[in-house]
Amino acid sequence: TRRGYPEAIFCQGKTVDQVARIATVLVGQPQVALFTRVREEQVTALLEVLPDAAYDAEARLVAWPPVPPEPTGGPVLVLAAGTSDLPVAREALLTTRYLGRQADLVVDVGVAGLHRILAQVPRLRTAKAIVVAAGMDGALPSVVAGLVAAPVIAVPTSVGYGAAFEGLAALLTMLNACAPGVAVVNIDNGYGAGHLAAQIAAP
Amino acid sequence: TRRGYPEAIFCQGKTVDQVARIATVLVGQPQVALFTRVREEQVTALLEVLPDAAYDAEARLVAWPPVPPEPTGGPVLVLAAGTSDLPVAREALLTTRYLGRQADLVVDVGVAGLHRILAQVPRLRTAKAIVVAAGMDGALPSVVAGLVAAPVIAVPTSVGYGAAFEGLAALLTMLNACAPGVAVVNIDNGYGAGHLAAQIAAP
Amino acid sequence: TRRGYPEAIFCQGKTVDQVARIATVLVGQPQVALFTRVREEQVTALLEVLPDAAYDAEARLVAWPPVPPEPTGGPVLVLAAGTSDLPVAREALLTTRYLGRQADLVVDVGVAGLHRILAQVPRLRTAKAIVVAAGMDGALPSVVAGLVAAPVIAVPTSVGYGAAFEGLAALLTMLNACAPGVAVVNIDNGYGAGHLAAQIAAP
Amino acid sequence: TRRGYPEAIFCQGKTVDQVARIATVLVGQPQVALFTRVREEQVTALLEVLPDAAYDAEARLVAWPPVPPEPTGGPVLVLAAGTSDLPVAREALLTTRYLGRQADLVVDVGVAGLHRILAQVPRLRTAKAIVVAAGMDGALPSVVAGLVAAPVIAVPTSVGYGAAFEGLAALLTMLNACAPGVAVVNIDNGYGAGHLAAQIAAP
Amino acid sequence: TRRGYPEAIFCQGKTVDQVARIATVLVGQPQVALFTRVREEQVTALLEVLPDAAYDAEARLVAWPPVPPEPTGGPVLVLAAGTSDLPVAREALLTTRYLGRQADLVVDVGVAGLHRILAQVPRLRTAKAIVVAAGMDGALPSVVAGLVAAPVIAVPTSVGYGAAFEGLAALLTMLNACAPGVAVVNIDNGYGAGHLAAQIAAP
Amino acid sequence: TRRGYPEAIFCQGKTVDQVARIATVLVGQPQVALFTRVREEQVTALLEVLPDAAYDAEARLVAWPPVPPEPTGGPVLVLAAGTSDLPVAREALLTTRYLGRQADLVVDVGVAGLHRILAQVPRLRTAKAIVVAAGMDGALPSVVAGLVAAPVIAVPTSVGYGAAFEGLAALLTMLNACAPGVAVVNIDNGYGAGHLAAQIAAP
Amino acid sequence: TRRGYPEAIFCQGKTVDQVARIATVLVGQPQVALFTRVREEQVTALLEVLPDAAYDAEARLVAWPPVPPEPTGGPVLVLAAGTSDLPVAREALLTTRYLGRQADLVVDVGVAGLHRILAQVPRLRTAKAIVVAAGMDGALPSVVAGLVAAPVIAVPTSVGYGAAFEGLAALLTMLNACAPGVAVVNIDNGYGAGHLAAQIAAP
Amino acid sequence: TRRGYPEAIFCQGKTVDQVARIATVLVGQPQVALFTRVREEQVTALLEVLPDAAYDAEARLVAWPPVPPEPTGGPVLVLAAGTSDLPVAREALLTTRYLGRQADLVVDVGVAGLHRILAQVPRLRTAKAIVVAAGMDGALPSVVAGLVAAPVIAVPTSVGYGAAFEGLAALLTMLNACAPGVAVVNIDNGYGAGHLAAQIAAP
Ligand SMILES: Nc1ncnc2c1ncn2[C@@H]1O[C@H](COP(=O)(O)O)[C@@H](O)[C@H]1O
Ligand SMILES: Nc1ncnc2c1ncn2[C@@H]1O[C@H](COP(=O)(O)O)[C@@H](O)[C@H]1O
Ligand SMILES: Nc1ncnc2c1ncn2[C@@H]1O[C@H](COP(=O)(O)O)[C@@H](O)[C@H]1O
Ligand SMILES: Nc1ncnc2c1ncn2[C@@H]1O[C@H](COP(=O)(O)O)[C@@H](O)[C@H]1O
Ligand SMILES: [Mg+2]
Ligand SMILES: [Mg+2]
Ligand SMILES: [Mg+2]
Ligand SMILES: [Mg+2]
Ligand SMILES: [Mg+2]
Ligand SMILES: [Mg+2]
Ligand SMILES: [Mg+2]
Ligand SMILES: [Mg+2]
Repeated sequence: TRRGYPEAIFCQGKTVDQVARIATVLVGQPQVALFTRVREEQVTALLEVLPDAAYDAEARLVAWPPVPPEPTGGPVLVLAAGTSDLPVAREALLTTRYLGRQADLVVDVGVAGLHRILAQVPRLRTAKAIVVAAGMDGALPSVVAGLVAAPVIAVPTSVGYGAAFEGLAALLTMLNACAPGVAVVNIDNGYGAGHLAAQIAAP
Repeated sequence: TRRGYPEAIFCQGKTVDQVARIATVLVGQPQVALFTRVREEQVTALLEVLPDAAYDAEARLVAWPPVPPEPTGGPVLVLAAGTSDLPVAREALLTTRYLGRQADLVVDVGVAGLHRILAQVPRLRTAKAIVVAAGMDGALPSVVAGLVAAPVIAVPTSVGYGAAFEGLAALLTMLNACAPGVAVVNIDNGYGAGHLAAQIAAP
Repeated sequence: TRRGYPEAIFCQGKTVDQVARIATVLVGQPQVALFTRVREEQVTALLEVLPDAAYDAEARLVAWPPVPPEPTGGPVLVLAAGTSDLPVAREALLTTRYLGRQADLVVDVGVAGLHRILAQVPRLRTAKAIVVAAGMDGALPSVVAGLVAAPVIAVPTSVGYGAAFEGLAALLTMLNACAPGVAVVNIDNGYGAGHLAAQIAAP
Repeated sequence: TRRGYPEAIFCQGKTVDQVARIATVLVGQPQVALFTRVREEQVTALLEVLPDAAYDAEARLVAWPPVPPEPTGGPVLVLAAGTSDLPVAREALLTTRYLGRQADLVVDVGVAGLHRILAQVPRLRTAKAIVVAAGMDGALPSVVAGLVAAPVIAVPTSVGYGAAFEGLAALLTMLNACAPGVAVVNIDNGYGAGHLAAQIAAP
Repeated sequence: TRRGYPEAIFCQGKTVDQVARIATVLVGQPQVALFTRVREEQVTALLEVLPDAAYDAEARLVAWPPVPPEPTGGPVLVLAAGTSDLPVAREALLTTRYLGRQADLVVDVGVAGLHRILAQVPRLRTAKAIVVAAGMDGALPSVVAGLVAAPVIAVPTSVGYGAAFEGLAALLTMLNACAPGVAVVNIDNGYGAGHLAAQIAAP
Repeated sequence: TRRGYPEAIFCQGKTVDQVARIATVLVGQPQVALFTRVREEQVTALLEVLPDAAYDAEARLVAWPPVPPEPTGGPVLVLAAGTSDLPVAREALLTTRYLGRQADLVVDVGVAGLHRILAQVPRLRTAKAIVVAAGMDGALPSVVAGLVAAPVIAVPTSVGYGAAFEGLAALLTMLNACAPGVAVVNIDNGYGAGHLAAQIAAP
Repeated sequence: TRRGYPEAIFCQGKTVDQVARIATVLVGQPQVALFTRVREEQVTALLEVLPDAAYDAEARLVAWPPVPPEPTGGPVLVLAAGTSDLPVAREALLTTRYLGRQADLVVDVGVAGLHRILAQVPRLRTAKAIVVAAGMDGALPSVVAGLVAAPVIAVPTSVGYGAAFEGLAALLTMLNACAPGVAVVNIDNGYGAGHLAAQIAAP
Repeated sequence: TRRGYPEAIFCQGKTVDQVARIATVLVGQPQVALFTRVREEQVTALLEVLPDAAYDAEARLVAWPPVPPEPTGGPVLVLAAGTSDLPVAREALLTTRYLGRQADLVVDVGVAGLHRILAQVPRLRTAKAIVVAAGMDGALPSVVAGLVAAPVIAVPTSVGYGAAFEGLAALLTMLNACAPGVAVVNIDNGYGAGHLAAQIAAP
């Protein structure tokens, strides 16, 4: 564990072999580890070395050991503006849980239908930290930050096309949120968002 | 008049002389003309040639003749997300009026305080076209378009700093609005927004 | 229906399962729905749930129910600068029709051969709203807006290569149209353009 | 107060008059308010209306009432990579204090001389939230986040020239921080960074 | 003379002294020289050294000797889309003349009013090379290239605002011209455009 | 033929069917036509309709009729800075020939080995127009333009990686050529470069 | 050999045939040559012509003759911030060796765990030139340059996602390194970095 | 001194007071210091504290003590492509000298007139390191690196306009130099270039 938090292995640029070798070190160890952005063939190799590891295909995450620790600290809420933002939102959700917080997911609360997010206000106000994943216009974090006192962690997603520029539009929107209290992480960085949420909601 | 609409003279790149010469042609004519993005010294020259022309310093607009025509067609509403968006919003407002529509202005209804825009919903629903000027995150048009059936004309403003990139962030947000019905014009283009509103709300 | 207009389901970032589940809700319902940017495998799943749905391969659109409503409001014209702009133009055309307007398509009227667009002027002047899809230089909307009094909805397409930058060049051209009356939507956003046209030409 | 936090007035795009009018409302009120990015002539007008207001020239901040509240919650640390980052760092520092946290400033701990930041490690580990202001390469947040368990709020500054692109280089560095736990705000947004720190370190 | 063409001195980044020293070398010489992008104080210094030199304030050009050579080769036509493009168009016009071609200027023939450029078609077809200066959407070269057989030299100008991005929008439009036969030069580079025209129309 | 030059059909965004239908019109016609950026399956369809058409795989060009016209006008020279620039250079070469000029190709004369281009100087000086295709730094046109009096048509290629940004680096280099006489076309636009060369070298 | 250094053949844009033909010239020659960025099918062809050539799959490099020369000059150190930077780091390492220097590789010394790079300081100080390959935030060169007196050659890698923008973020970080002594090369240009290191450490 | 090299104080973002306070520490000290990018009013303050300090207005540099150390190591050559690149070239020249190397300056050797740089080849080959400052197309380093065996340090300058984008065009050119052996530093960073040259040419 690094500074009290589990280690994460960024699998995107790694070969199957490199990932498997890292997994081998964990066998029979109590140490928590998250493998992020895993490809199918890496998962196969990982599950050979660590057959009990938990794999979430949507979040592209392998976790070891498979069961998250007993939650401590405050509750975290993860919002996905649309269905297409789910992979990123789920990566945040699971990361937060494996880092030891209680966390829930709310989907399809984009600003095009305000009643959906307004209906969640009481629940939003119970959270110690809120992760908001949104693509296209990325407008949801501005709206949420205006409704709660807790910090909002905004994750731009690459959902969209054309002038969405692979998430750049949403990223800029979030950096310019007209409500204070918005912390931005990299495009599609559900892992980073979940990590920050776990730190902010730490006991 | 071009295709039934008054001519506009874009004064930004013109010398005082060039602008004055254009004004001279209008003397004693019934023809409507708008001088947009006028500089102080151009105004002085214009008012020498056309002493009765109307000048709005905030909108940087000189109009001739000074009184807008009797309004026809549907009502137009112009929204400014914040006080700093007023110059652009006002340019849109006056343009719409000089093109013959009834138009009103609503200020300070940004998405950081949703109750402000929600309080305007009945009024929003009476308009045939809505202009929304917003800078920074540019999130207001997405929200407004989700609340009304009329077209929303979104004008990104250069209000903001850093990653607002002189209005680029707001422009991209608006182009990616997650609600349909958002028509985008150039950054700070209050004139173009007002023109479009007048065309859409034409009788 | 949202604010009087049919709902659209943006299928790009969704799994086959997610799309099929949404379709299931529509079975035996009178509610109009458009599935945009559908992939082949999504279409198969959709047609299993809704065998009578209309599918347009070029526009990548599935519509339910298959027959557009009886048209009301003013006529809409959709222009495609070149043959390669057809998929986007057709998405706009069909969206407009399913939203209840009469709409026609004119192809291959790019500015490199001015006589082609000049030959259409009388027809252009009958429309209440004109959609123009153009890639590469994106110059057609400027020219069309100078010829008519109705609003022009400009859709930049990603047609081209090199410094076309996937439609960015055409997008910027359209935002800077030297004729007023040009409303811009996202690159390749035929759906959004058609929606706006239907709103503007509403009775 | 908005959601428990003082209101801030963004003075950059406002006229002297607009700012003075807002100040007038505060006279004889207990309500806390921060005027950010004030220009010299705005300060003069503000101090006429609120003679006891606190003005910090380096942070370009006017605060009312002048004395910050008694601090609650955890301690906050603000780091400035170099002397040139001081205006932004100080804006963060004062914002945090006026929002009710205890906050300290550490200057000139850039990564070009690692011993300087290494000497601060024990102190860094006492903070509940750390703000890091850095321009040019913006590398300091990555290093700090690797040394502590608390969240790091990274503020890119526009310090530098050429390929620093007015803070863009530092912004990208921070969004790509190779250590987790880095929350990014807009370029030169000391106010937003301080606000987030106060929220995170809230009791 | 370089390869048969006069030398040009790019004065933008030079001190008054450096420019004056270059002029001194020309005294009493038959050698043709153009000083481009001259500032007022450089002109004063130049005219002290070369009192008979020709100075054109709009084109920011000083020429020595003051009278262009007797024209040879084919005629060149320079078009300015709008009045604001005149400085760049005039720099091209004078450069072409000082390089030995016959050249004429046509102003205000932008595509928003097609009849203006259509009225010039017979004249356009007499030219051996056509320079087109246009800002904002930069659409004019596409249209002109579709009307003539001679090469079109397109000069984007920095006229416009917002998403014109200082001439970038016009530059991209021109690089993507949907008609072949468009040669592009740098933004505001009237000198380069005129030089190319003179080369193309050389005897 | 358009304005005296053969028509070109841009095949990139077209279906096999659309291309075949265009070819059918040409059967038994004397009209010259170039099919540019053809894909393998389009070629098969084209050769079924026009079995005698000429196909150049490297240039991705199909020409009909297969034999270029007897050359008129001045000679054209096409330079490729490196072997990887050959597809673009060849597209230019063949276009020039099918438009009726005599044209030759010189390969591998990049500026990293100056002696190679210096050895070609006498030959360079015989051309009426020179096309230069170069990727990466795109420096070759600046050097060539300094050596000859004829116009240089610079085609940036997408050869390179990283900060070559798909040809953007070379494009910018060419637009900023420190020698006058450089005409720039779109990235990888060998067709446009060859067309311009044929126009410039026309009799 | 060019100016005393082996020739390199950039294989990315070349056909298998072109590469094989170049190899044929080397048969039975003492001349050193490096084939960089080779694709699998090019390797097969190369090894047919030069069966003894050395091939490193990770570095995508084929070297001829297979054994590097006896090293002269000072030692070079190549650092890879993370495992994913290995392909680039290895390309630099091998290039340096084939150009005649002694060179070693140190992996996984990113700034997120400072102790790793601090443990290498004595070793770092023995090098005459240090190559640092890093992606994402690209912060490592700034830190290393602050620890040594030798020049640091920084190679940004395309490792990362989202706002890493294919290596652009790391590139900008390195160009803005707050410590002097950082020489930057193109994204993923391990070959160029190794070449520079060999030149700097030449005897 | 940092790692054996003098300290540099980056004065751009500092107040006159901050700079003066730093100077005060140097009084009566043997320590070498360079104040870079000094503004006029900073110079006045510096010379009050250190009356004997050397000030170079063109390079915007103040050095203390005023006389460079006795040179050691190999000779360094600084090239300026044009006169406008002189300020940057001179900052490099002086930095190199104050860091203890012998250094010379060669001006006006841009690639538009190849004979100028070719005439310098013998001199170029005597240098242990060559700094090349160039703006606009930034093509000179590619050419120089092809002529010598020593490393070339390329400094893009912000000389130019339009698509030079304040030095970005030259920066990209240099990063993509088609000759190996080019080390790039930030736009206008003469200080960094001179520092690298001094390190490379160290004894
Ligand atoms: N092709 C499209 N382009 C842009 N927006 C779309 C498109 N299709 C649907 N939408 C919008 O996306 C929203 C639905 O998103 P979702 O809930 O993710 O299906 C709807 O409100 C539509 O207005
Ligand atoms: N306005 C201009 N824009 C672009 N290039 C120019 C301009 N004026 C002169 N030049 C070129 O710059 C070179 C002169 O640069 P210099 O030696 O710095 O005066 C000449 O070779 C010209 O071709
Ligand atoms: N490879 C090409 N690059 C750029 N423009 C082209 C190319 N090939 C054809 N064109 C132009 O595109 C137009 C034909 O477009 P289309 O009608 O879509 O086939 C012609 O007028 C050509 O000038
Ligand atoms: N002109 C310059 N450009 C880039 N970096 C510089 C410059 N001058 C000084 N520096 C670096 O900036 C650091 C000093 O920054 P500071 O402590 O803010 O004065 C030193 O370590 C120098 O390496
Ligand atoms: Mg959203
Ligand atoms: Mg807003
Ligand atoms: Mg077009
Ligand atoms: Mg730093
Ligand atoms: Mg125009
Ligand atoms: Mg080259
Ligand atoms: Mg790193
Ligand atoms: Mg140069």
